[in-house]
Amino acid sequence: MTASAMNRIASVQFEVRTQGRDWIALDDRLRGAVAHSGVREGFAQVFAHHTSCSLLIGENADPEVRRDLERFFARLVPDGDPLFRHAAEGPDDMPAHVRSILAGVSVGIPVRDGALALGTWQGVYLWEHRARPHTRRISVTILGH
Amino acid sequence: MTASAMNRIASVQFEVRTQGRDWIALDDRLRGAVAHSGVREGFAQVFAHHTSCSLLIGENADPEVRRDLERFFARLVPDGDPLFRHAAEGPDDMPAHVRSILAGVSVGIPVRDGALALGTWQGVYLWEHRARPHTRRISVTILGH
Amino acid sequence: MTASAMNRIASVQFEVRTQGRDWIALDDRLRGAVAHSGVREGFAQVFAHHTSCSLLIGENADPEVRRDLERFFARLVPDGDPLFRHAAEGPDDMPAHVRSILAGVSVGIPVRDGALALGTWQGVYLWEHRARPHTRRISVTILGH
Repeated sequence: MTASAMNRIASVQFEVRTQGRDWIALDDRLRGAVAHSGVREGFAQVFAHHTSCSLLIGENADPEVRRDLERFFARLVPDGDPLFRHAAEGPDDMPAHVRSILAGVSVGIPVRDGALALGTWQGVYLWEHRARPHTRRISVTILGH
Repeated sequence: MTASAMNRIASVQFEVRTQGRDWIALDDRLRGAVAHSGVREGFAQVFAHHTSCSLLIGENADPEVRRDLERFFARLVPDGDPLFRHAAEGPDDMPAHVRSILAGVSVGIPVRDGALALGTWQGVYLWEHRARPHTRRISVTILGH
Repeated sequence: MTASAMNRIASVQFEVRTQGRDWIALDDRLRGAVAHSGVREGFAQVFAHHTSCSLLIGENADPEVRRDLERFFARLVPDGDPLFRHAAEGPDDMPAHVRSILAGVSVGIPVRDGALALGTWQGVYLWEHRARPHTRRISVTILGH
């Protein structure tokens, strides 16, 4: 275990433009934010300010994994399900809210040696759950020393 | 990006009395906690000390969204499912544990300009998964400068 | 509410050897890490560096709860489901990625009075989703004063 004085906080916000249901890798932007923060040891909190997309950690090597996840969620939470009464914005409206809760909108990731300490196969993704394009706002808070 | 000296931590704990399966908005209490913490920039960690309710971010505008989520989870994890052997406290016992894991018990939210930086449609909710009333304990930890 | 100077960060990393699908309690290791960190008030972020296991909070009293969760996830995300095209490492490959996203890989837990402030029935677990043994890497970051 290492223990040190905690003395630094950095924050950044950016927007991502989505084009319907898809996964958008955020690793490069997050790695840049950590590098610029000057934090060597600590952690980064990444947060999406929305209830119809997800911010999550997924497998980064085989794009088929993300397509399988899309297929799995499409079966689990089908568009236009008659169970749902909230459909103000169309058949993908309520399924997007359910997916957002199941996959989450926030992750905390350790920072070690001045870099985001993701596992070899981990990537940080914005997962758009709406069928139409949206502008998504992401906040990153980095705390440490 | 802004970077500053990190120098403040605040914590508060409160209880919520639930009346069966329902969503209880915590935003006012959390906004008050952030205002009193004196933290301008940082993040707030909100945590429920239980395994049969959820602490999560949901849509805050249309109450039908929360009722649809209740309907979806009632179908996905039905009470009295013969799959479950743990039923010591009744047919809603094990479903409550499953829901608690699917929707989570902890969220991290950015603090910006001295306020909780939720998106326009985001609210923080305690979601009670048990059919009978319970007293739920919530902890908030706010870190920043 | 208590508010104090924030001045300490501690981090530790350890490995867990799994033996197929099972839950492994991490509480003792985490309590030890918090005790050694010297942090009295703050929070601990626990993170698994993988996309085919989960790091989560579950019920700690009745092992049947964990077996019911295994049964529920086995039905919800069945091995060898023809829906999945990514099966490079076998029929449990893609289901492990789905489970990892549904149950998460990261939790934030408050630290109070120098101890991990879990609820009475809460335990922190590594949940192995692969059928074969794996070595899993866990990082803990403790921030506070």
